[in-house]
Amino acid sequence: MAEGSGLFVSFEGGEGAGKSTQIRLLADSLSSRGHEVLITREPGGSAGAEAVRHVLLSGAAEEFGTRMEAILFAAARSDHVEQVIRPALDKGVVVLCDRFMDSSRVYQGVTGNLDADFIETLVRIAVNGTYPSRTIILDIPAEIGLKRARVRAGSDTAEPDRFEKEKTETHEKRREAFLDIAAAEPERCKVIDATQAQGVIAGEVLAAVEPLLGTVPADRHKEPEAAQ
Amino acid sequence: MAEGSGLFVSFEGGEGAGKSTQIRLLADSLSSRGHEVLITREPGGSAGAEAVRHVLLSGAAEEFGTRMEAILFAAARSDHVEQVIRPALDKGVVVLCDRFMDSSRVYQGVTGNLDADFIETLVRIAVNGTYPSRTIILDIPAEIGLKRARVRAGSDTAEPDRFEKEKTETHEKRREAFLDIAAAEPERCKVIDATQAQGVIAGEVLAAVEPLLGTVPADRHKEPEAAQ
Repeated sequence: MAEGSGLFVSFEGGEGAGKSTQIRLLADSLSSRGHEVLITREPGGSAGAEAVRHVLLSGAAEEFGTRMEAILFAAARSDHVEQVIRPALDKGVVVLCDRFMDSSRVYQGVTGNLDADFIETLVRIAVNGTYPSRTIILDIPAEIGLKRARVRAGSDTAEPDRFEKEKTETHEKRREAFLDIAAAEPERCKVIDATQAQGVIAGEVLAAVEPLLGTVPADRHKEPEAAQ
Repeated sequence: MAEGSGLFVSFEGGEGAGKSTQIRLLADSLSSRGHEVLITREPGGSAGAEAVRHVLLSGAAEEFGTRMEAILFAAARSDHVEQVIRPALDKGVVVLCDRFMDSSRVYQGVTGNLDADFIETLVRIAVNGTYPSRTIILDIPAEIGLKRARVRAGSDTAEPDRFEKEKTETHEKRREAFLDIAAAEPERCKVIDATQAQGVIAGEVLAAVEPLLGTVPADRHKEPEAAQ
């Protein structure tokens, strides 16, 4: 793979929006065109980030305050960016990341009750200049998304119980928050209706990324020819 | 102990400056006057901070970048402040902390090559408004401090080897950095010559803290009387 500047695309959205499926479909499309593609995810994605993730999931975490937790997420993201994402971009790779900074804004900011300034400062520190060029927001109404997630989890009923109704309200708040981010940064964010058929969504995702591929190396399959 | 506003004092300085001894002596003086005193230290000092410390000392840490490490220190400090220091201050306790934010500035900023803006942002996020009212900087020339640290560690020679000489230069840089902080914030920081006799230093430390004790509760030994 030639040295060059890659492309950083993040995927956001609530439960049941189909992020992993669409990331896989986009990766296949791009690979078939000769791009080198890296799929990664947050939280996690690097050795340091996994170590932090382990702390966040440990028993000790019950005593952590929400501020400490948010800073730990930032530490994990910093490592993920420095050790994985930026080096890949430097090599001309297309990086597809399942959740990135907008998830912090929505999950910690909107529903975790931390102030926006604090969250933005942490994002800035962790990202350290490596922002996604494109963010795909897979938008789905709470009830449909949660129903899909339930079915996927193998629940024997697709009907919501009492607790699910609380979840629906929270999900709807997050959905609104993702749409607000998209409205504030229309150049970066593309909102795609995730209730459509998978193939239709995949086409829209590819169309949203295509215009940015101009200078990204796509010579993975050409290298053997060049070597003759 | 009556509800009220305590006093937050941090202690800074290089190796062999005698911080722990002076913290113990000050704690004894203040306790004998009826103040409730809490001695704590960084890194660590709370359950969350200890969990982070564990990550920082783990094998995985060898792969961490310096930015990730600095953010992890900030997460630990945030927990220490929220869970231990601020609640103690709210109860009118005198909190004596062995190393605090100035150590980050000096150890990560000056000798860790991270930019000052990044370090200051992390300090601001972690401290979240709970700054020390007084910082005692125990100042000692590198050679004397390192010699003391060697003797304390039970080394059979007080003479420096080749590696110790490198350490001397680093120690001297840090010493200058602490003195720069003191010069920039003379209201908060008091520099004390740590080559003096322990009793002399202890007197100067007490004198540096005394003017701030005015409104700090000192009724621990009076409570039984009041209850009669």
